[in-house]
Amino acid sequence: MENIYAKRIEEIRKLGFDAVIIKGTDPHSSEYPADRWKQVQWVSGFTGEAGDIVVTADHAGLWTDTRYFIQANAQLKGTGIELHKTRVPGEVGIPQWLKSHFPDRRPRVAVDGLCQSIGDIRSLSFCEIIDCPDLLSQLWADRPAIPHTPVEVLNEKTVGMSRHEKISRLRSQLEAKGCKGILIGSLDEIAWLLNVRGEDIDYNPYVISYLIVTTKRTVWFVRNVDEVPQIEGVVKAGYGSLADGIEDLKGCGRIMIDPSTVNFSVYKTLKSALGEDNLKFEKSPVAPYKAVKNEKEIEGFRKAFLEDGIAMENFLYWLENEVASGSKITEWDASVRLTELRSRIKGYRGNSFGNISAYGPNAALPHYSTPVENSDLIRKKGLYLVDSGGHYEYGTTDITRTVPMGRCTRSEKEDYTLVLKGMIDLSMAVFPEGTAGCQIDALARRPLWEAKKNFGHGTGHGIGFFSGVHEGPQDIRQNFNPMPLLPGMVTSNEPGLYREGKYGIRHENVLLCREHGKSEYGRFFSFETLTLCHIDRGAIIRRLLSKEERRWLNAYNRTVRKKLSPHLESEVAKWLRKKTRRI
Amino acid sequence: MENIYAKRIEEIRKLGFDAVIIKGTDPHSSEYPADRWKQVQWVSGFTGEAGDIVVTADHAGLWTDTRYFIQANAQLKGTGIELHKTRVPGEVGIPQWLKSHFPDRRPRVAVDGLCQSIGDIRSLSFCEIIDCPDLLSQLWADRPAIPHTPVEVLNEKTVGMSRHEKISRLRSQLEAKGCKGILIGSLDEIAWLLNVRGEDIDYNPYVISYLIVTTKRTVWFVRNVDEVPQIEGVVKAGYGSLADGIEDLKGCGRIMIDPSTVNFSVYKTLKSALGEDNLKFEKSPVAPYKAVKNEKEIEGFRKAFLEDGIAMENFLYWLENEVASGSKITEWDASVRLTELRSRIKGYRGNSFGNISAYGPNAALPHYSTPVENSDLIRKKGLYLVDSGGHYEYGTTDITRTVPMGRCTRSEKEDYTLVLKGMIDLSMAVFPEGTAGCQIDALARRPLWEAKKNFGHGTGHGIGFFSGVHEGPQDIRQNFNPMPLLPGMVTSNEPGLYREGKYGIRHENVLLCREHGKSEYGRFFSFETLTLCHIDRGAIIRRLLSKEERRWLNAYNRTVRKKLSPHLESEVAKWLRKKTRRI
Repeated sequence: MENIYAKRIEEIRKLGFDAVIIKGTDPHSSEYPADRWKQVQWVSGFTGEAGDIVVTADHAGLWTDTRYFIQANAQLKGTGIELHKTRVPGEVGIPQWLKSHFPDRRPRVAVDGLCQSIGDIRSLSFCEIIDCPDLLSQLWADRPAIPHTPVEVLNEKTVGMSRHEKISRLRSQLEAKGCKGILIGSLDEIAWLLNVRGEDIDYNPYVISYLIVTTKRTVWFVRNVDEVPQIEGVVKAGYGSLADGIEDLKGCGRIMIDPSTVNFSVYKTLKSALGEDNLKFEKSPVAPYKAVKNEKEIEGFRKAFLEDGIAMENFLYWLENEVASGSKITEWDASVRLTELRSRIKGYRGNSFGNISAYGPNAALPHYSTPVENSDLIRKKGLYLVDSGGHYEYGTTDITRTVPMGRCTRSEKEDYTLVLKGMIDLSMAVFPEGTAGCQIDALARRPLWEAKKNFGHGTGHGIGFFSGVHEGPQDIRQNFNPMPLLPGMVTSNEPGLYREGKYGIRHENVLLCREHGKSEYGRFFSFETLTLCHIDRGAIIRRLLSKEERRWLNAYNRTVRKKLSPHLESEVAKWLRKKTRRI
Repeated sequence: MENIYAKRIEEIRKLGFDAVIIKGTDPHSSEYPADRWKQVQWVSGFTGEAGDIVVTADHAGLWTDTRYFIQANAQLKGTGIELHKTRVPGEVGIPQWLKSHFPDRRPRVAVDGLCQSIGDIRSLSFCEIIDCPDLLSQLWADRPAIPHTPVEVLNEKTVGMSRHEKISRLRSQLEAKGCKGILIGSLDEIAWLLNVRGEDIDYNPYVISYLIVTTKRTVWFVRNVDEVPQIEGVVKAGYGSLADGIEDLKGCGRIMIDPSTVNFSVYKTLKSALGEDNLKFEKSPVAPYKAVKNEKEIEGFRKAFLEDGIAMENFLYWLENEVASGSKITEWDASVRLTELRSRIKGYRGNSFGNISAYGPNAALPHYSTPVENSDLIRKKGLYLVDSGGHYEYGTTDITRTVPMGRCTRSEKEDYTLVLKGMIDLSMAVFPEGTAGCQIDALARRPLWEAKKNFGHGTGHGIGFFSGVHEGPQDIRQNFNPMPLLPGMVTSNEPGLYREGKYGIRHENVLLCREHGKSEYGRFFSFETLTLCHIDRGAIIRRLLSKEERRWLNAYNRTVRKKLSPHLESEVAKWLRKKTRRI
């Protein structure tokens, strides 16, 4: 029986191009697309959250990063699709690969221009680009439609800033750059600017739409326009009428677009209506502005992490007791229980991503997807890893705890402790104004590096306010992202270690960047840990922690106990007291 | 009496351009130019090793970095020239400043195209560039001539690789990039490729020249061509006949040039002779190739640091005794003594830069230039800093020691210890293949950052083999230089701390990057410390060092004692034994 994906690849080949690129994103450069745009999954069966495909006459390849190597190898079996590794030394990206694959001629490359950013296409300047919007629809009979869900308008008291204020500031920023308007394709930026949320995409509370802001008007191009509430100061228009909206920009002046998030099809429309000279390519000013949380947002985050911590402690208490008493709890059961505990919280608006509930060797996949059926039993030994988070109308959370379910091996304990050291060292960091994440990433990795160990994912990502759990522009990882960490930014701190076939460890807290103090050497920043959930002492090798690390851990666990205990049932509080004893 | 520099600025204004840019470099983008090209010093009196000047009708400014702020403020007094700070957050570089200074029109900007790299001019695309080669000669009556000194041909046994081998490898690299030749302007690259050295520039053992390597020929454009020894496989030509050499490239094919080191005038000649399409702009492949030292070079470095360490220990012994016994030793006396001790070493070829011999508050200038006359006395208290190095035919050294001359204040001791912690922490670093200096720079800064302290210069620079003491492409600093550290690279490790008006501290060792081991997580690298000279325990606050740092320090001082003692007079060896007692 022929593999279904091998068949689909063949159908793509029959389209007759030198190469076809299938991107794992949507017209808005979303990290997590709605089902309609799960094109990579449809073509290859690969379900990882990042991946692009290239099909040529003699080759089909999936490009994905370190997080998904094990998963991709498993899922691509029998498809004939080869794995191309990204985020590794000496990686060969799609443009470079195409170039070497067609050394002597300009290949005809088909793309779905809706799902390619301007930047993507720029890197293919050596190709003849054939833009086929919705390219896959001709092959994909039951392709899902574009979703539309109810739009929620957020209370200004919760979000701390009116859309009027946000848009006014954006207009000043446009003016400073000599622009009269901006076209925004990025869904998180639109949601934040307008103080609206939707449920169009799993785990991402966005409304699929485009936004045009000029000095005079704000026009929101949105689906099912009649059902969308009227919003003061914002003109609604149909999602499909963006081209008309672009026509209306004629004579308006220079329009800013972010080449990394505006798609190629929209760019072509803009170019033909306004001319290239009237376009200014610029990183969107909204992203860094949104990333620096205001006081209300910070207050909301603190509340979210308190509520989330209560749910987490109740979950860990339940799990430990169930497993200890011999109940047959699977990874999936645990995941369901955790979601249930979160869903009881007032203001809960869903999970911020799919729970990763992974026991033993399954945790060696940093982005393990817990199967609904036949997921593994959580046994009374070794390590269990749970990475999860919630959306609340007052904030978004993300937390990973790795907990010993019973006896652990020497190697599990050692790795548990080394990863924890890194997490603590980054938590304690003090750094001068202007420091970017990549400049302090090593602090989280050093304890592992010293033991010739490492992890292949980033150490930290920005987190949105009741928005995407992955948010730019800052991060903490081994790239060269020059964006400095600024007071008010919220970023995860999640070093890990993965032993294929054995176990996986990750400790994740979320950090708020804050002022640390001034001196003759300038301003210094440090972190406040927002996450509230104890770190299990059970798998720690005490002598591997420095005095300062022990002091940090004891203080952290004490804070967790103090803040959460008043909200816990007495037996859970008692258990937590034991769990947070000094080490 | 009018300030001489103010007068010179006026003369430059009279040339009638909107702006005149004076660069602090020569036609070869040298970091340290010969006297002929000390143009910035002639115009402004500023003697720092990095600085550019812009003169407009209403403004004259000097752009320089953190190392020279204090010095520039002092030297610019009365000149009317304003200091523009670079390498600071929010810095405004020359192009950006010019742009905002002439918002409404395309300014006519005069440059000396010989002293501007292609890259420099590219960043001025909004200006009308008037190229005036040797621009200053019309005003500078007694401008020094281009120097020429005897050329030394190095023994292949010492350098470990024949020029034939080096050039063959370069040719393969050119071929891989689709090029038939390369024009090299960078003096250190030429010296290394041809295994030749000169003394044309203070502290930099180079021969002022250009080099063209094609698949067929190697032509060296050098001054006083008849006096230059015949070198096998290399055609000599006059320095002034480069244009003819470029003519000869017609029809040869694509020529590679590095826009950061080939000057604008040469580029114009190339362009008019060969056409822009026949030029390939690319980072020179010579720099990274040269930076990875071969076994012979590493052996030479070890010998150089041994010899240099003996001189340093003899110097420090002498200084401590002289000062303790009440002799009046000035900073200059100390500097002379140190050079004398180095000059006795077999194979010594001069200092690798001007000694920085700085007592007390003078050391707060990271690049203090010790005055020949009336330099300060070294007293029996506080800290003395000496940063120096030698060229030997088998290697180049660079070392900084800060030593207590008697009682130190609490603050001196604390800062001494914090800087030392950073130096040790970086020395102990282990990191995965692919790591760049900027990703581990924080290790050297963390102890200072935690105390809200910092230093404004880089932590480490590459070091050439009997070549420039500053060598790319790797470094360890807070920029985003993506060049990874590779086994065989030699880099300094020199954190510091500077208290204006009080004291300055810097501890500098030189590190050799080496293989550390492999694991399932890949290859890991670490450092071997090449420098051999004890670190004084006298100013250390013991409890501020971690157990690991103390262990490193004791092991280091023990190694120094073991390796150097056999080469020291018995009383010096005895003194060193005391100096290197365990802490």
